Amino acid sequence: MSVYLSSSEDYEALLDQYDTWLFDCDGVLWRGDQVVDGVVQVLHILRKRGKKMIFVTNNATKSRKDYKKKFDQVGLEVHVDEIYGSAYAAAVYISSVIKLPKEKKVYVIGQAGLEEELRDEGVSFLGGTDPADNTLESFKLENFTLDPDVAAVVCGLDTRINYTKLSKAFQYLTRNPGCLFIATNEDSTYPTSHGTLPGAGAVWAPLRFALDRDPIVTGKPMKTMLDCVKAKVNFDPHKTIMVGDRLNTDILFGQNGGLATLLVLTGVTTKEDITGPSASTIVPKFVTSSLGDLRSVEKAP
Amino acid sequence: MSVYLSSSEDYEALLDQYDTWLFDCDGVLWRGDQVVDGVVQVLHILRKRGKKMIFVTNNATKSRKDYKKKFDQVGLEVHVDEIYGSAYAAAVYISSVIKLPKEKKVYVIGQAGLEEELRDEGVSFLGGTDPADNTLESFKLENFTLDPDVAAVVCGLDTRINYTKLSKAFQYLTRNPGCLFIATNEDSTYPTSHGTLPGAGAVWAPLRFALDRDPIVTGKPMKTMLDCVKAKVNFDPHKTIMVGDRLNTDILFGQNGGLATLLVLTGVTTKEDITGPSASTIVPKFVTSSLGDLRSVEKAP
Repeated sequence: MSVYLSSSEDYEALLDQYDTWLFDCDGVLWRGDQVVDGVVQVLHILRKRGKKMIFVTNNATKSRKDYKKKFDQVGLEVHVDEIYGSAYAAAVYISSVIKLPKEKKVYVIGQAGLEEELRDEGVSFLGGTDPADNTLESFKLENFTLDPDVAAVVCGLDTRINYTKLSKAFQYLTRNPGCLFIATNEDSTYPTSHGTLPGAGAVWAPLRFALDRDPIVTGKPMKTMLDCVKAKVNFDPHKTIMVGDRLNTDILFGQNGGLATLLVLTGVTTKEDITGPSASTIVPKFVTSSLGDLRSVEKAP
Repeated sequence: MSVYLSSSEDYEALLDQYDTWLFDCDGVLWRGDQVVDGVVQVLHILRKRGKKMIFVTNNATKSRKDYKKKFDQVGLEVHVDEIYGSAYAAAVYISSVIKLPKEKKVYVIGQAGLEEELRDEGVSFLGGTDPADNTLESFKLENFTLDPDVAAVVCGLDTRINYTKLSKAFQYLTRNPGCLFIATNEDSTYPTSHGTLPGAGAVWAPLRFALDRDPIVTGKPMKTMLDCVKAKVNFDPHKTIMVGDRLNTDILFGQNGGLATLLVLTGVTTKEDITGPSASTIVPKFVTSSLGDLRSVEKAP
């Protein structure tokens, strides 16, 4: 059973208990371009009280540097090295976990942010934002030359997804022996300030279906993402809490890492999703309606 | 256990036994633009012997009229009313099975052939080949106006698939109450003369994943397709055989309809797929390496 938090005493106790705070971003800090009410103050309070803060996002369209601009834009002060994205996790996985040889390449379904993280990790790539692959012209297999050095296909959210990219990725995955299938994250949808749109998991769903094969996923809820954080930041799991709006990514991610979890209802998950007979089996430790609620600890005179 | 056919006596017995012959096209009659060796002669023989022939295709990119051109092009003489496509089945399903009211519309992910069949059945539609929806420009939800009359999304193979189409379809399916999710077919891949490419099932896989919902499928192996044939053609199931290259569409389709089945190995299924410990549980009645083999009944002097 989750503990529902609502009073300033509840929030005060939570602040006392946890030293390191991991946050999901979309649906927790903001929705689309709008910061969630009260979140600016809450981050100020946490920083003032000396809490370690880590922002963990499955957004793979932006590099950490780009993502920093999003924080700036909505008025949240964070440092680049506090941000961990699934594109970064994918790049680190390729460069440091599987240690792809330098002469090998990856084929990218994804946007500039994913390319930037790969470049920073020294991974050669093709596809991605290459104009030749961003086309609705019909794909002619007879004009396609398979690059034998492509040893992995890596997929993130790509709003310029098209049949040429899918077909090329499919060729590499079926014709280059041992070619790896890697995905930044498997979010089925993502929230914007105007509504919900198909997510990264939907973008590579065609490959999963055509191949009948699951990718290696580097984002939440997978351990790869927490390994990335652990490599850079010291934290005591018993004094660490993961705050998120999704049960099957954020809350599961916290649980997989042995962390406490706080679900907020400003994003994808509704109160109905966690109560009643059809409630999820993923149960957060704490629930509050919004991260902004925590500002009440400093509201009293 | 399947019966493997290889001698002219085998084929002669098969011709004696079946009066109505249903054929899959891609991978059976042709691969890409190349007719399978011997098939021209085999169809001549069947016609000469007074066999009823029906061509059942999951190809939803072409209308029956368009598809006729494909037969002409590879040198096969058939009549338009011998052709049954999954786009036609989807249009008939919408107009005659669910009887969509005339003021309602469908949103199309698909190509001109699907639009033509819908138009012929008097179904109003939007999306499809509309230039506004065939773009890689970023999709802005704030600029999108939901049409409340869209009561179904229908998906076929669409090689101009893009994020705008997926996002619009997703909006209709999540925001228009009761909006139906219909797919022409769920082929994961399709064969061309230069190799294999992602199929219709891969094109709508993003929606299935984002929605966590399966579509109603009108193509093979579903009964809807055979209902379409039955409405137009009289045949005795005991004297009817379905010839195809895919176990999970063609052969299952034949079995679902109580027909005999003949698997050919000129398409997707290999000998390895039907033998050994990991063989499919879908077992065709007969197997032969190619439909062209049947010409041997007239080779002997």
